[in-house]
Amino acid sequence: MSQLPRFGAGIWHFASYVDRYAVDGYAPPVSTLEAIARAGEVGELSVVDINYPFTPGVTVEQVKEALAAANLECIGITPEIYLRQFGKGAFTNPDPAVRRAALDVMHESAQIVRELGASYVKIWPGQDGWDYPFQVNHHDIWKLATDGMRELASAHPDLKFVIEYKPREPRVKMLWDSAARSILGIREIGLDNVGVLLDFGHSLYGGESPADAAQLLIDNGLLWGMDVNDNLRGWDDDLMVGTVHLTEIFEFFYTLKINNWEGVWQLDQFPFREDTVQTARASIRFLKALHGALDTLDIEALRAAQARQDAITAQMLVQDALLSCMGGAR
Amino acid sequence: MSQLPRFGAGIWHFASYVDRYAVDGYAPPVSTLEAIARAGEVGELSVVDINYPFTPGVTVEQVKEALAAANLECIGITPEIYLRQFGKGAFTNPDPAVRRAALDVMHESAQIVRELGASYVKIWPGQDGWDYPFQVNHHDIWKLATDGMRELASAHPDLKFVIEYKPREPRVKMLWDSAARSILGIREIGLDNVGVLLDFGHSLYGGESPADAAQLLIDNGLLWGMDVNDNLRGWDDDLMVGTVHLTEIFEFFYTLKINNWEGVWQLDQFPFREDTVQTARASIRFLKALHGALDTLDIEALRAAQARQDAITAQMLVQDALLSCMGGAR
Amino acid sequence: MSQLPRFGAGIWHFASYVDRYAVDGYAPPVSTLEAIARAGEVGELSVVDINYPFTPGVTVEQVKEALAAANLECIGITPEIYLRQFGKGAFTNPDPAVRRAALDVMHESAQIVRELGASYVKIWPGQDGWDYPFQVNHHDIWKLATDGMRELASAHPDLKFVIEYKPREPRVKMLWDSAARSILGIREIGLDNVGVLLDFGHSLYGGESPADAAQLLIDNGLLWGMDVNDNLRGWDDDLMVGTVHLTEIFEFFYTLKINNWEGVWQLDQFPFREDTVQTARASIRFLKALHGALDTLDIEALRAAQARQDAITAQMLVQDALLSCMGGAR
Amino acid sequence: MSQLPRFGAGIWHFASYVDRYAVDGYAPPVSTLEAIARAGEVGELSVVDINYPFTPGVTVEQVKEALAAANLECIGITPEIYLRQFGKGAFTNPDPAVRRAALDVMHESAQIVRELGASYVKIWPGQDGWDYPFQVNHHDIWKLATDGMRELASAHPDLKFVIEYKPREPRVKMLWDSAARSILGIREIGLDNVGVLLDFGHSLYGGESPADAAQLLIDNGLLWGMDVNDNLRGWDDDLMVGTVHLTEIFEFFYTLKINNWEGVWQLDQFPFREDTVQTARASIRFLKALHGALDTLDIEALRAAQARQDAITAQMLVQDALLSCMGGAR
Repeated sequence: MSQLPRFGAGIWHFASYVDRYAVDGYAPPVSTLEAIARAGEVGELSVVDINYPFTPGVTVEQVKEALAAANLECIGITPEIYLRQFGKGAFTNPDPAVRRAALDVMHESAQIVRELGASYVKIWPGQDGWDYPFQVNHHDIWKLATDGMRELASAHPDLKFVIEYKPREPRVKMLWDSAARSILGIREIGLDNVGVLLDFGHSLYGGESPADAAQLLIDNGLLWGMDVNDNLRGWDDDLMVGTVHLTEIFEFFYTLKINNWEGVWQLDQFPFREDTVQTARASIRFLKALHGALDTLDIEALRAAQARQDAITAQMLVQDALLSCMGGAR
Repeated sequence: MSQLPRFGAGIWHFASYVDRYAVDGYAPPVSTLEAIARAGEVGELSVVDINYPFTPGVTVEQVKEALAAANLECIGITPEIYLRQFGKGAFTNPDPAVRRAALDVMHESAQIVRELGASYVKIWPGQDGWDYPFQVNHHDIWKLATDGMRELASAHPDLKFVIEYKPREPRVKMLWDSAARSILGIREIGLDNVGVLLDFGHSLYGGESPADAAQLLIDNGLLWGMDVNDNLRGWDDDLMVGTVHLTEIFEFFYTLKINNWEGVWQLDQFPFREDTVQTARASIRFLKALHGALDTLDIEALRAAQARQDAITAQMLVQDALLSCMGGAR
Repeated sequence: MSQLPRFGAGIWHFASYVDRYAVDGYAPPVSTLEAIARAGEVGELSVVDINYPFTPGVTVEQVKEALAAANLECIGITPEIYLRQFGKGAFTNPDPAVRRAALDVMHESAQIVRELGASYVKIWPGQDGWDYPFQVNHHDIWKLATDGMRELASAHPDLKFVIEYKPREPRVKMLWDSAARSILGIREIGLDNVGVLLDFGHSLYGGESPADAAQLLIDNGLLWGMDVNDNLRGWDDDLMVGTVHLTEIFEFFYTLKINNWEGVWQLDQFPFREDTVQTARASIRFLKALHGALDTLDIEALRAAQARQDAITAQMLVQDALLSCMGGAR
Repeated sequence: MSQLPRFGAGIWHFASYVDRYAVDGYAPPVSTLEAIARAGEVGELSVVDINYPFTPGVTVEQVKEALAAANLECIGITPEIYLRQFGKGAFTNPDPAVRRAALDVMHESAQIVRELGASYVKIWPGQDGWDYPFQVNHHDIWKLATDGMRELASAHPDLKFVIEYKPREPRVKMLWDSAARSILGIREIGLDNVGVLLDFGHSLYGGESPADAAQLLIDNGLLWGMDVNDNLRGWDDDLMVGTVHLTEIFEFFYTLKINNWEGVWQLDQFPFREDTVQTARASIRFLKALHGALDTLDIEALRAAQARQDAITAQMLVQDALLSCMGGAR
């Protein structure tokens, strides 16, 4: 049995949620500190990614204490550059004052990363994009996106920034929408402290093979973080990992393994209607079984099958490992 | 020039919106009365569909007055059976007490329909469905859906009920998901006061041809209402009508016309980031042009082309009418 | 260990294929008799569904002998009502003479069913639909579809007919596109010898939950046959079953089991680039493991979880059974 | 009225087609020379892109004569690296001998380009990709793809090569699948005689905004050719341009215009069931109208609206131009 990875989660996994219909929220509000406590309850997590600003009134000191109490470290800070003010974009907002305000939140987030000893600022520019054909000038908006990211990252050469790409939502189309586009953008930015966080579900519903996207990012030296979850391939459902795309999540982790990628296995899930702690536990239970499947997978035989594009043999090898991985759990 | 139809809108077109990211809302809250006033400002609308419960504190009397002041009538009431309490379903909630609470809201809505002299109660069971494979027993949940609808409609034989189907969102999969399924369900219900409201966008992203779905509903005597909007065919984006699928919205209205369907042309749009009144005006401007295109379309020649599946001729006739319909607007 | 089902396959599983690019075919042509021999080689199949007309020159007598030699029975005959002549439709072709020709092929197929002692004529009206908006009159074409089917089935009251629905391909949109629409159409036909064959992949990429579609058909007494395979949910890729959607294929078979559905488990796969016999063997190997998983699944606990929509518990139970089902195979 | 562009077409627009169902073809075979003659009949085309090898027996000399007789020039040669031999890939075939054979066809195509005075070799590696999860090693296959392309292009420094990306079909997933990935690959190749041909339909059903993809390619100096057509955003239907996505095709050409892109407007359509010449004429008729719409579009006002992401104003300006562009044609 190989060494288990460290597990983590976005702290929003333990929040409550609203959507455009259940405007009163699927559950009562959860503060930053309560969410950290819940993450600790899971008993399996080592790190969390925390949104900034924290719940009003909560201090960095309190966050530190809550993390310590929960036996957690902070891996990254995710600035909330997708609230009302940034509805038409953060880096790419048509209003320069709003772009400035977005950068201010991100600069503050960088400072929090330092204070918490975290690994990176995670940039998810969810409002940077467009909704309608003809709504934007595509040259100009992409330039705003890369110029802004360069301005941010160059101001903090001591820190790492990871961009989390996503095809769409909340904008009908987002700018940083794929692994390839993200690599291109980072090349245009031209700084070595900007990388990518790959979200398995974003990749999947964007039409990528997440395994292929991971390999491309690794080959470009840019896979600096990742999140897992699941969906029906048409939207970012943020379901529990391992509930729909078993083979593809296995291929994703297989790809990480053969590349000796050794980062945190993180959850980015939205349990709208479920107990958030139980959702995390069930997810980690699955991930541990999957990790075991990687141990039993006959990688040498698989590589040989792949070298001749022998899908039948490859699938049988995969099924042998995957479809027996939960044996010990029963 | 044939007679223009009456135009309408869901009152939520004039609300403000939240989503799971912009939890502070894309704009400040808008009360029921304010939304009615905004609908009146459009200057083109005759009717609105109103959510119930109203904003806390607002009375039916006030709504009546607001409608009169705005020169609007109420066409339907949409009970909010998708708020927190109903997160796991209204008709199909696993908890009988919640099912009862949902029916209570709908019974109250029926009473409001009477008081406002509206045409129907609109039932959009957005939380009735499931998120995960294996989450529900498909037989049992569909029975709850049809039994519940029967119980509701049979309690108000003097009123009409229209079901608005939708493939998904907020549940990952919804029960009433297509025109054909809705017809089947209504047959199982077995009452003649239950029909369908077809939302163009729902039909489109559900993989239907909205024109075909409309024809099927008409042939079954069940097309009792409709909403228009637009999307990118992968999600219910609720964009302005006429911004993406010009040919298909034209075919949809063409189908209504040749069947002498004469109901209200209603807007169901979510202008998250736009001025809601201006959005409605631009939409009606387009719909009027489209209505004019129906006048100039050579229907006889089109029917002849369709009789031989002559797509080329059909498209040229359609382009002749559609691509010159805005001539008078300039 | 419960009794294994009988396994079957469409005979085209053992053919060679062309597409619009590899116009010289992915492999040399395979005759009807050769394909039957290959099906026999699999060693796991009890029945095959056979296309009609057979390869030119092949007689029914020869087919009988080939089946006997391969230890196979014929479960159904699939008339090829999708060749050049029927490019614009079979039942719904705009030319009455072509419609007649299509019916002739189907009448002959009915006779072959009798001669081979098969169970049904399988009707897959792949060319019945449209490609462009405005290409057809939706009322008229649906009437042609149901009238034609009624004419066919009423001419052979001693036989069963199963309609295999599919959302699209080769037409951009097909008429019989979903379980619900098929049930509606069969009700309009009004005969009791017309049912449905559900193809798992068609259901999946049509946006249905195949388990839900199966339940709906069962509840309407119309699930008379089924095919399995897999795809990426966007097209009818006809991949090997069990290579992508493990959880959903499991839920599909679970649904059949709890309804005591006891028909043949059939393969409908297109191994364009793979050995056809090996593909079938690998598929049956998976299906046997899945069948075993149904034995170990804690159905009582699952039903209890479903009754409260408890997705977490349901998924853990499913993973326990599914992710250990290949244990014995290694 | 600004100068009309030159129009062109892939010669396959005038061929006949098979698919996996209509294996006898939707029409009788059409030879290279007949297809050229048909292209000439359209009366609107200046150039064609020709597949190589030609129909057996046809010489380059004959092709030259046929082009001259049809008043056409050859813009590019498309080697058929997707026939049976290349079913598991051309550049990325697991068999080195097959990779060599593929390069041989492409080297010959390069020679034909010289002989016909064409502009480029068009590389569409339709079989380069995979079908199943775990079928290939993603690092190795991408390296084969870029290494092979480098070997090809570096052997012909006097010629241009354009890669036409596509998300999928005939492989379930293709390697060169998007604009961004293509740019990345070309950067890895590191040669200045390799560019991109953007197919509007490929871009659309791959989830890109074709206008955005065009802008990205232009900004990278790599948009060297383009094809138009239409589809339902889920598959490469290769329908007539202008039959579904009117607004987005308009935005695409608008983007070309504001960037002063002055290449050929080419058709890549598959009229399976239509007259191929009439299909081309109807398409050019639409493109001419669209070209006129670009003349009447108020670009200055549009740019101002885009600068503030004012979707409503942008759409009204677009509708004013687009929905009156066919006025002169009636």
